[in-house]
Amino acid sequence: MTSILYKLKKEAPLVHCITNYVAMNISANTLLAIGASPAMIHTPEETAEFAKIAGALTINIGTISPHWLRGMKNAIESAKSNNVPWVFDPVAHFATPFRNELALELLSLQPNILRGNASEIIGLSGNQSAAKGVDSKDEVDSAENAAKKIAVDHNSIVIVTGVTDLITDGKQVIRVEGGSNIMPKVTALGCSLTCLLGAFVAIEDPLKASLSATTIFSLAGKRAHKISKGPGTFAQNFIDQISLIEDTEFEKSLIVNENI
Amino acid sequence: MTSILYKLKKEAPLVHCITNYVAMNISANTLLAIGASPAMIHTPEETAEFAKIAGALTINIGTISPHWLRGMKNAIESAKSNNVPWVFDPVAHFATPFRNELALELLSLQPNILRGNASEIIGLSGNQSAAKGVDSKDEVDSAENAAKKIAVDHNSIVIVTGVTDLITDGKQVIRVEGGSNIMPKVTALGCSLTCLLGAFVAIEDPLKASLSATTIFSLAGKRAHKISKGPGTFAQNFIDQISLIEDTEFEKSLIVNENI
Amino acid sequence: MTSILYKLKKEAPLVHCITNYVAMNISANTLLAIGASPAMIHTPEETAEFAKIAGALTINIGTISPHWLRGMKNAIESAKSNNVPWVFDPVAHFATPFRNELALELLSLQPNILRGNASEIIGLSGNQSAAKGVDSKDEVDSAENAAKKIAVDHNSIVIVTGVTDLITDGKQVIRVEGGSNIMPKVTALGCSLTCLLGAFVAIEDPLKASLSATTIFSLAGKRAHKISKGPGTFAQNFIDQISLIEDTEFEKSLIVNENI
Repeated sequence: MTSILYKLKKEAPLVHCITNYVAMNISANTLLAIGASPAMIHTPEETAEFAKIAGALTINIGTISPHWLRGMKNAIESAKSNNVPWVFDPVAHFATPFRNELALELLSLQPNILRGNASEIIGLSGNQSAAKGVDSKDEVDSAENAAKKIAVDHNSIVIVTGVTDLITDGKQVIRVEGGSNIMPKVTALGCSLTCLLGAFVAIEDPLKASLSATTIFSLAGKRAHKISKGPGTFAQNFIDQISLIEDTEFEKSLIVNENI
Repeated sequence: MTSILYKLKKEAPLVHCITNYVAMNISANTLLAIGASPAMIHTPEETAEFAKIAGALTINIGTISPHWLRGMKNAIESAKSNNVPWVFDPVAHFATPFRNELALELLSLQPNILRGNASEIIGLSGNQSAAKGVDSKDEVDSAENAAKKIAVDHNSIVIVTGVTDLITDGKQVIRVEGGSNIMPKVTALGCSLTCLLGAFVAIEDPLKASLSATTIFSLAGKRAHKISKGPGTFAQNFIDQISLIEDTEFEKSLIVNENI
Repeated sequence: MTSILYKLKKEAPLVHCITNYVAMNISANTLLAIGASPAMIHTPEETAEFAKIAGALTINIGTISPHWLRGMKNAIESAKSNNVPWVFDPVAHFATPFRNELALELLSLQPNILRGNASEIIGLSGNQSAAKGVDSKDEVDSAENAAKKIAVDHNSIVIVTGVTDLITDGKQVIRVEGGSNIMPKVTALGCSLTCLLGAFVAIEDPLKASLSATTIFSLAGKRAHKISKGPGTFAQNFIDQISLIEDTEFEKSLIVNENI
């Protein structure tokens, strides 16, 4: 039997990431560590051309501007026309009206996978979240109904990340435990997970891809925790561990986590 | 008695940082390490909305362009109208006429705290500095009069950073010793200090905030120095140490450093 | 006898790098580690003013947009008028027509040094490369003729980087061995080499500068390899090692590598 991880390393999918400035370096390193090939091309003049040759596209609005929004839309339209799956990360969409409006517009383009924290997912479902600023103020479990609703409405897999990650296709709900409490102290790890979801959805269906990427993150986080003194060394150890996870270990964790 | 550091960790202020591309990741990690919540939103369409919900705003012109300048101005105006304090970092403002002009324009908006190296502070006071390019060619002490003048003229706390940091409100002058000679070899540590000043000024008056942030930097630098082989490992160890500094140690250093 | 490395550390040249978002932080840290002074100014309103005071200019199109292209052109014209050498890194120019066209336009401005992977160099010579997306699919040696042709046509030193680096002025060919197989797993190391080439070409002729910078990279890579568990820790150890290489060791490696 060939594992998903083995397949990913063999195929080394090209992942087109239009993400925020803070996240670009660590996201690219996360993709290289797992064996994928990242590209951060964003300008509207070339994103449509590039998205169609990629294995997957990931969109993150963390430091968006109108120019980047045009690049994202061109990329998404091209991805959809060419059956390239895309992943959406609606960072802090509740922070301003400008951001909220464009997040809803992008969501309406039906991402194959949507990843956010509890406040982001609750907000996108039309319900009132407790969030202010950029951080989640809601618990993962409180977003379960919102996640299911969005999954059904937009035909997406929805992932709510937090202490435990929740994955749903609108009917079944899978929870992935693990990770480390240092992870929220390292900037852009969630954004990097969004890019990693791109690597897996380039070679697998969105539900399996979601389970695989969150499991990798959970495993690497648990291992990096043991050898790190704080968030600075954790970030580097985490990238090391992403690169060191082996097939058998990954498969074992996947089976234990899988409730489907 | 509650320490400022304890208060910061408890309140976890949202700090709106409009900074340069080089500095974004390490600045965000510095803020997360101390317990604050960073956001790097820059586009003029949303900076006014966002600045008003932040605890503080920090502005850094390192990689500025006209689009970003508009975002900064909108943010500053909104911050001032909503009593949100703001911190200004006039990176290499002497490098080009474009940069010099906009730095003076931003300074006229009266930042609560201004942080720069000696050449930057001397240049902003209208005197001739020895600088060329982007680095300071002047000693911290040579900028004392310039710092005092700007502090009085613009009703700001002015910080001149270097081997020893100098803090002034125009009358009294405080010096913070410590740190590490590796620090100038790590890019964007000064920019990260500017963001950290934002975290402290969100919860304290500008003078105490300045003393607190520079003391944290000095302490973390001294500790990271002991366990690092060069600037690469230093950067990560420094972030670890920022997260590991405890109340009692911080308070002790603060008292020793405080001459007021 | 004074070594090139000693000279670089003494003169601390100002290197104007217009590079991609992913690469900015690690490139700046690479330059600081070797003893140079990096500046990442990009906006067309000031790049001409800034390029003329720099020791060298480096141009990298990784995350280019029309606004940045204007900044690059202004910088290059100014550099050429003021005898400031410039280095060109045509990242993934084959990925889209937009990118391909502008890469050829920039190449026609005759960089003093051109650095790319085998696919990039083959593509720029007008031949068909095997590349798709952003990665090289060609071996370094297969690009030898293409590199020689470009070197002659554009009066440049051309460097093809890969497992072995190949340097040519169109006639002689030098190969630099070494490095680590972890290096392609760390994002933006190639881009950082481009910036390091800027530091050396600011103080030496393009051929010696090319040999020096690739030798430094090879040495630091070999040493970092021995003490790193994966690409995360490698990145930091690599920067440490860049800063720790001493004159004598550098000179020794340079002689062994030099076939001219």
